[in-house]
Amino acid sequence: MPRREREQQIIDVGVRVFAKRGYHAASVDEIAELAGISKPMVYLYLDSKEGLFLACLRRESDRLVAAFQGAARAGGAPEERLYAGLAAFFVFVAAHRDSWVLLHRQAAELGVTIAAAVAEVRRLVMAEVAGLVGDGITDSGHGSVPGGAGTGGPGAPPGGTDAGRGALLGAEDADFVAHALVGAADTLADWMKRHPGQSPDGIALRLMNMVWVGMRHVLDGEVWTPPDA
Amino acid sequence: MPRREREQQIIDVGVRVFAKRGYHAASVDEIAELAGISKPMVYLYLDSKEGLFLACLRRESDRLVAAFQGAARAGGAPEERLYAGLAAFFVFVAAHRDSWVLLHRQAAELGVTIAAAVAEVRRLVMAEVAGLVGDGITDSGHGSVPGGAGTGGPGAPPGGTDAGRGALLGAEDADFVAHALVGAADTLADWMKRHPGQSPDGIALRLMNMVWVGMRHVLDGEVWTPPDA
Repeated sequence: MPRREREQQIIDVGVRVFAKRGYHAASVDEIAELAGISKPMVYLYLDSKEGLFLACLRRESDRLVAAFQGAARAGGAPEERLYAGLAAFFVFVAAHRDSWVLLHRQAAELGVTIAAAVAEVRRLVMAEVAGLVGDGITDSGHGSVPGGAGTGGPGAPPGGTDAGRGALLGAEDADFVAHALVGAADTLADWMKRHPGQSPDGIALRLMNMVWVGMRHVLDGEVWTPPDA
Repeated sequence: MPRREREQQIIDVGVRVFAKRGYHAASVDEIAELAGISKPMVYLYLDSKEGLFLACLRRESDRLVAAFQGAARAGGAPEERLYAGLAAFFVFVAAHRDSWVLLHRQAAELGVTIAAAVAEVRRLVMAEVAGLVGDGITDSGHGSVPGGAGTGGPGAPPGGTDAGRGALLGAEDADFVAHALVGAADTLADWMKRHPGQSPDGIALRLMNMVWVGMRHVLDGEVWTPPDA
């Protein structure tokens, strides 16, 4: 078997075992045995337990990013692409629960290097989502408005209850919405696990409806303010 | 100094040191020294490093829950209480960054017991948010509608693109919105750290505007669907 194929086979097993046992409790012995290969061979190919874990993380994060970007870049209006990206995310998590456990839960368990690698993936996705949200804002004819929170920067007013009106308008606002969406999607991945009757694309659609419909109305000037504001 | 006061003092230092160094790298020696107390005394009061960490987690999670509930239960319409709760959350995180690092990042680093304790706090907050969202739905005269996703259960249709219409209507839907909100708030706590010019209540208000305005419109039948649906 060629080296690359053999490595992929070890990584397949690694993802499964790390997700099941956690990084510290997982043993290279078990991974080698399940992969039908000797332990020295695992070390020869992937260097160490940490090297193996990193290879697992890297492959699964590449797959997740590819799934998201493949869907989000397929064309259409920004909101369609955002929906397609979200749906691809939920489909990926539903189909690759072990990968998600690795990326979402276990990376935090580990050292700074690994946490930084995962944070980088998150930044990539976040930037892509913020781009789509920003495009959606621009396409609807609502550009950045002077004085809106979008002008941001050190000179910007300190927020307060003014932040409601004109809040969803600039690049900073697109970044805000992207953070809210990505955070919501993270947590809804857990929700999805407890609601197996709900389809991934149905969940993406509900999330779009919560956020996109509201964003459009806020852009049109409909703003909720607390009664004492 | 009475025992309880002494313990609180050790916990104060513990929160700071654990947040700065992480659980594994933190040393009881350093905590004892900074608290101006002997190491055996720390063990006498808090049993072990894990015992100390658990005491830190417990106190900070109690404080966070108390801040959230104090604000969210103060009275007013459900959406005002939800906003007040969200604002209290962001105010807490801004003022107690170390507590948040402990609760949000480092608990994952540790064993199943600790992770379960933190998950329980999250469930408490989630249930409270879901209650407010549910009350908001009921107050607006939109009850649970037969056939909506809210009827849920094993017999419910498998979602798909039908999940958009009538999606935000029942207890399950309130739970869905609560998960999205809590996940968004988690991630926006990071965003807030990188945008020190933005006030916590301004961030809460922007989040309310994204979600609440959209939810109201969806309840009124305005639904976004992808073009091929």
